[in-house]
Amino acid sequence: MSNESFTLDPRLQADTHGVATLSLCDVLLMDDDRFPWLILVPRTPGCAEVSDLPVADQARLWHEVAIATAALRAVVSCDKINLGALGNIVRQLHVHVVARREGDAAWPGPVWGSGQAPRREAPARELLVERLRAALSNDTVTS
Amino acid sequence: MSNESFTLDPRLQADTHGVATLSLCDVLLMDDDRFPWLILVPRTPGCAEVSDLPVADQARLWHEVAIATAALRAVVSCDKINLGALGNIVRQLHVHVVARREGDAAWPGPVWGSGQAPRREAPARELLVERLRAALSNDTVTS
Repeated sequence: MSNESFTLDPRLQADTHGVATLSLCDVLLMDDDRFPWLILVPRTPGCAEVSDLPVADQARLWHEVAIATAALRAVVSCDKINLGALGNIVRQLHVHVVARREGDAAWPGPVWGSGQAPRREAPARELLVERLRAALSNDTVTS
Repeated sequence: MSNESFTLDPRLQADTHGVATLSLCDVLLMDDDRFPWLILVPRTPGCAEVSDLPVADQARLWHEVAIATAALRAVVSCDKINLGALGNIVRQLHVHVVARREGDAAWPGPVWGSGQAPRREAPARELLVERLRAALSNDTVTS
């Protein structure tokens, strides 16, 4: 693992926009207009499972998931947060943090496998990214 | 929260069998013959989100998820672990730890919302519970 450098999986790259860099993870916004949806990707090469991370980094990952959850809740209203680490299709370790609203396009089912994602219009996306970035930066002292 | 006692949600009660009691969570086996599937429920009343738990208990929850993941991997073979905390239907905080196999009944989609669960035959279920309980008890020193 040590000689390998980290590269974001090309499918994650294609489906997301960068929001912030925390100490372990890159925070990405999923380009799906139906759901406010963050993805955290630890910059550790060769990991598919949370349990592949060193124990201290597992704790850091979940701490950063908590930071991302708080930022998402500060920026959008929602009824439920959905967390998931699946990786059945994209094996590079990544954790989903999704703001769900009752009656949204997949409610009450999961967002994963819920059909084609309509892209966000660029102005709406840029505004959301800016707000999320600001909310995350409020947490840099704890990240 | 302090005056309220913990009671397992009746839908979780109906769909699972008890496996073990860790320091924060009850570990339950989902009664779905298609997937080896554990559910961890913190015995903290009134929580719907991971972020509703005190910070120290959030860390303990994820530590117990790691223990449950290791026990599941020790007992069944799998290609991927899926972790999820959704709660769109059952709001009581619970975390899913699911052993996935390529080509299983929902592959590569999520197990949540994947149709009616066929129940396990009692002897197979009891054997699986016993093996999981033994694997989890190997970890009691760290739980």
